[in-house]
Order: sequence, then C-alpha cells, then structure tokens
Amino acid sequence: MVFKFELLHQSKRSAARVGRIHTENGIIDTPNFVPVATNAAIKAVDSHCVNQHDCQLLFCNTYHLALHPGGEIIEKAGGLHRFMGRKGAIITDSGGFQVFSLAYGSVANELKSKGLKSHANMVLKIDEEGVSFRSYRDGAIFSLTPERSVALQKQLGADIIIPFDELPPFHCDPKALVESLHRTHRWQMRSLKTHLSNTAKQAMYGVVHGGVENELRKQSASYLSNQAFDGFAIGGSLGKNTRDILQVLDASCPYLPREKPRHLLGIADIPSIEQSLSRGIDTFDSCYPTRLARHGVLITGQGRLKITSGKYKQDFDSIDKQCPCWCCQHYSRAYLHHLFKAKEPSAQSLATIHNLQAMATHMQHLRQAILADEI
Amino acid sequence: MVFKFELLHQSKRSAARVGRIHTENGIIDTPNFVPVATNAAIKAVDSHCVNQHDCQLLFCNTYHLALHPGGEIIEKAGGLHRFMGRKGAIITDSGGFQVFSLAYGSVANELKSKGLKSHANMVLKIDEEGVSFRSYRDGAIFSLTPERSVALQKQLGADIIIPFDELPPFHCDPKALVESLHRTHRWQMRSLKTHLSNTAKQAMYGVVHGGVENELRKQSASYLSNQAFDGFAIGGSLGKNTRDILQVLDASCPYLPREKPRHLLGIADIPSIEQSLSRGIDTFDSCYPTRLARHGVLITGQGRLKITSGKYKQDFDSIDKQCPCWCCQHYSRAYLHHLFKAKEPSAQSLATIHNLQAMATHMQHLRQAILADEI
Repeated sequence: MVFKFELLHQSKRSAARVGRIHTENGIIDTPNFVPVATNAAIKAVDSHCVNQHDCQLLFCNTYHLALHPGGEIIEKAGGLHRFMGRKGAIITDSGGFQVFSLAYGSVANELKSKGLKSHANMVLKIDEEGVSFRSYRDGAIFSLTPERSVALQKQLGADIIIPFDELPPFHCDPKALVESLHRTHRWQMRSLKTHLSNTAKQAMYGVVHGGVENELRKQSASYLSNQAFDGFAIGGSLGKNTRDILQVLDASCPYLPREKPRHLLGIADIPSIEQSLSRGIDTFDSCYPTRLARHGVLITGQGRLKITSGKYKQDFDSIDKQCPCWCCQHYSRAYLHHLFKAKEPSAQSLATIHNLQAMATHMQHLRQAILADEI
Repeated sequence: MVFKFELLHQSKRSAARVGRIHTENGIIDTPNFVPVATNAAIKAVDSHCVNQHDCQLLFCNTYHLALHPGGEIIEKAGGLHRFMGRKGAIITDSGGFQVFSLAYGSVANELKSKGLKSHANMVLKIDEEGVSFRSYRDGAIFSLTPERSVALQKQLGADIIIPFDELPPFHCDPKALVESLHRTHRWQMRSLKTHLSNTAKQAMYGVVHGGVENELRKQSASYLSNQAFDGFAIGGSLGKNTRDILQVLDASCPYLPREKPRHLLGIADIPSIEQSLSRGIDTFDSCYPTRLARHGVLITGQGRLKITSGKYKQDFDSIDKQCPCWCCQHYSRAYLHHLFKAKEPSAQSLATIHNLQAMATHMQHLRQAILADEI
C-alpha cells in the first residue's frame, strides 16, 4: 500500500498545515484544489491536456460512471486511469450524494435549504439495505448499497474512494438527523469492511456527517477516527453559507487525527478554501472554477475577470501575465473575448485550462503562506 | 512577394498534379484539404493545437470576421495569424458567398437548387456598386463592395485572398446568368485593382463563374486567366451533385494556366476530392470533415466509423491504428464513445482533431498516388 500522508508543516498561527499525500499514481501537495471530472472528463478539456497542467488529484463521480459506461467497461479498460488517460491520482465518491439529491431535489438547492421535492419519483426505495432508483438515462432500475458502491469503486480503481453514506435532507428534524447519522455510520462500516477485504492499493476516506449540529459532527468525527480509514472527508449538509461551513469544520476537524488527510466535499470557491484550510482541511473539490470558466469568468492573481465584457475587445494582453497555462502563453484577452462572443467551443476549453492553472497557482501560494506561518 | 506555385509532377494518367504553394507563412503541399475556421477558430480545437497537427492552409470567413470582432480589431492585433495564433498559411474569402446566401436563402439549399427566399429582407440593396445588408448580430447596416471586401481582407492579412464576386441564384435565366457573369468579372477587376495598389505579400485568386453553363465557365476561365491573378478558384453554383461539379471543372480547368494553383470553393468530401483532383484541382476547402467529427463520424483508412454506435462501447482499440493524431495516440474508441454518449464537449474536440489528421493523411496518399501516375 503506497498511500501515505506526510505532514510537512503545521502553521503556528492556525490549524492550517502543509503536507503531501502519496498515492500509487503520484503525489498530491496539500492543501490543494481538486477539479471535478464527473464523467471521467473535465468538461471541455481532454485528459492528456489536463496531464500537461498542474492537477494532482481529480474527482470522478461513481453515480454517473455506473450509469455510463458502467463499472464493467471501465474495469475491462484497465480501470479509470487507463480508460480516460489520466496520469495522476483520482478520487471517486460513493454515488450517495447524487442518489439522495434525486430523492430530495437539486443537491445545491437542498443543501442550501431551497430544496424542491422534484425527481422524488426517481428514487424507489431507501431502507437499511441501501437505495433503489431509476437511471436518468434509460429508466432502468439500479440499486446502490454500501457493498455495491465499494464494488463499483473497485472496478473504477481510483486511488481514494469514499464509503456509501446517507445524506439527510437539510430540513430534517433532530431525531431523524440522529437516526440518519447512525445509519450513515453503519453504511460506512459495511463499506469499510468490503474495502478491507480487498484494498487493491486504494485508500478509503470516512465521511463525517451530522448536518449543522455541532454535537453530532463531533460524535461523527470521533467515531470515524477510531475506524481504519486512511483519511476523512467532511460531507452532508454544510449549511447555507460560509459561516455555517466554518462552524461545521470547527465542530469536526479538532476530533480528527492530525496524521491523516482531510477533504472538504464539494466546496472550493476561493474564499471558502482560504477560510477552511485554516481549520485544517487539506483538499477541496468543486466544479465551481471550471463552471465559472465555461461562463467566461476567469480567475487571476488580481481577482476575477469577465472576459465577455466589452472592455476586453481590444485588450491584447494575456489573461494573466504571470500565468504559465496554454491559454495565457498563446492567446490574448481580445481573442478569448472574440471566441466567447462567436460562441466557439474552444472558448470554454481555453478558459477552463486557465482556471485550472489559476487554482493550482493560488494553492501553491497558499501553501507557501502556511509554510511561512502567515495563515 | 514570396507567393509561388511549384508544379512538381503532372500525372501521365489525368490532369492531376502534385505541387507546392509557397507563402509567407509556410508551404502548402498540393493537392491538399483546407479546413474551415469561420470565426478564426476551427470549431472545438484551439489554434495552437491545430498548429501541432498537419494543417497547411486554413480557410477563414471575411463576412463573419467583419461582423465580429471587425477588421480593425484584427488589424490592431497584428493580423489574423497573430490574433488567432496561427502558424501556417490562411486563405480568406470575399464575404460575397455569405451575403448572397442572405439574399437567396440557405447557400447549400440554393446551390443545390432547393432554395428558399428566406432572409431576403436582410439584404437591402444589390447594384453595380456592391451589396448593403443588415448584420445578423445586431441589425446594423453594413455594405460590401469590391473595394471594401479587399480592404477588409488587407486588415485580416491572410496569405491568399479572394476578389468580391456576385453569386447568382441557381434558378437564374440564361440572360441573367450572363449579366451576372459580366458583373462578377467587373467586380473582380475592381478587387484586383485595389489589391494590386498594395499587395502586402498577399496573393489573390480569381474566381471562375458561369453556373453550370459550360460555355460561360470556359469564357470566365479564359477571361480571368489573362488577368494578374496569382491563382484561381472555382466558385458560384456548382450544380446539384458530383456529376455537375465535374462538368463544371471539365469546362473550366483546361482554360486555366497550368502554372498557377486552383482551388475548389466549398467542396471537400472524399469522393469529390478524388474526382476533382484528376481534373487538376489543387486545394479544397469544406467544413464537412470537421462537422462530421462533431456528429461522431470519424474518417479512417477503412472508411467511416460512427463512434456513437453501441458496437464501440467495449472497443479499446484506437480509432485508427495507423493514425498519429492526439486522439488516436491517447484514447480508445470506447472512451470516445463514452464521451459522446455523456455529451462531454471534449468528444467533439478529439473527433475533430482526428478527422483533420485523417484528411491530411488521405491527401498525402493521394499525392503519392499522383506521383506514381496511378491517378
């Protein structure tokens, strides 16, 4: 088992730390941003292009890959790395997040407590065993249990996998939340048992739950810390805003072992990253920077830039003079502005490549700041 | 003036020939396929990626670029090559084709005689001076004359430019066709005069017209041959099918000087290329191979392959084992099939890169066959 977390520096100023996660497929310098490649592809950028940039860990979604092309095909291809041409580490989720979002409406809306009960009829059954639902692709009935989720993640072969967890709705009475926490712990233990019977060079991160209840978060972190997980993720409902997220982290991180890595699930806007890493979070995934890119919003050392704005029509500078990415090395703001205005698909590719590099550069600066005890 | 056509071999079997066009921005081996980058971008592939592949001449559309970002901006950027990051030669058209398609309905429909008189209200005036029309972007009134078209093409700075020509509708009585031919000749002479007052290292190709009337094609080719054009294009209505195209070529090419290059405008499917080059055509532009790619149709040495077909779901071979392109070197049919099924934008990018290379490879084989007098 190659997986190992090396704690290189603990800030004197906060819980922030600099480390290094070793995996079979490469090293991840932490804290780091983890782009999302839902369907085994970052939207608008091909894998070997991503390989040429600074992207040490990639997040793929088991739910989507299970529905297409299916775990068997990826296994036959030799696993996700070979299937998609990925050089570098991959983390997959359990599929639970997507399935429960079918039950409780749009995930983002629900987690932000704006939930609609749409798609509820796609989920057929939730019980102690697991969840049955209909495929959004063809209506076929599909079931996900802790054992099935881990088996799927073995077929995919990511470096880091996630146990199957239950996501309660945001609007959930305290008693139901406690029951959900206990079930999610039971499901995670079944997942861990399945995983440990054949680790296959994969690491498994336990997922801390408990909604926005400090006491439950503490309970969850303490309970999972005593299990044979290789690291931990902070999951479930993280509340409505950054303040809620930070409260959840303050209630969770102090109870997690410092010698294991910590991942924040689904949150990676720059302000949240900066505030969360000072609570001791090591990795952050989100489709946010790549989605911003596709809408023409570019991240630079001087803040965001909306490239479709008319003021860039004649601006022949690169997006960011300091940036070493393919887009900044080759194209001007004026050209990128034109590509967006002309609705050329390469606009999205170039903007995505830039934002990936901008996030990597920003994380590098944050690591340096922690090493200097400035954070 | 760097522009020069070198005739390397004249087939003993047909009018097919192998040559080399020298331009300020590189050599074009002929016969060759010319991909279309309407908005200064091949759809779904960025210019520097195209530069890394085998693409010696690129076709950009003056009409689209005049409307966005405008000739002034491209001129300020240092010309089209610098604006879009193109390493290699570029040809631009005059804009006439698009403007007359506004007047007579969809170009493809009209040229194939299925014309609808839609969009007719976009064109405000056609007279001896030129054409006035409304921008499809913002409704602004825009006029295109021979002088204006050449001035725009000077701002763009392509290696090869096209004089402003009139495109008669396919359904046009013989008298009107003769009148149109004379007007197109007058417009081309005004274009040539404007061009010769400041060649700026650009070459200009005269455009042979005359619809599907052999006698008019012969007249046009003979007339234009005596003018100071650097090469010739076959334009206007080429009829309804490949037989009509070949008839037009048979009526035109013998009257063009053999020491100057010949371009077929807008036709570059493989069967048409193969039949047209034996009439002595040197270059062929079309968005067809790149559009096919975006619909998942891949060109291989063994014919076409529809990658979305279920039979490729578990096919871990590359698209074409002989192909040196980025897609074939890095990805399997199964992965590309998955990307198309998952509607990932990178599917279109990878398929386009492949089809560009497949066309380049095919043209290389055709050149070899001509050199061996097999065509």
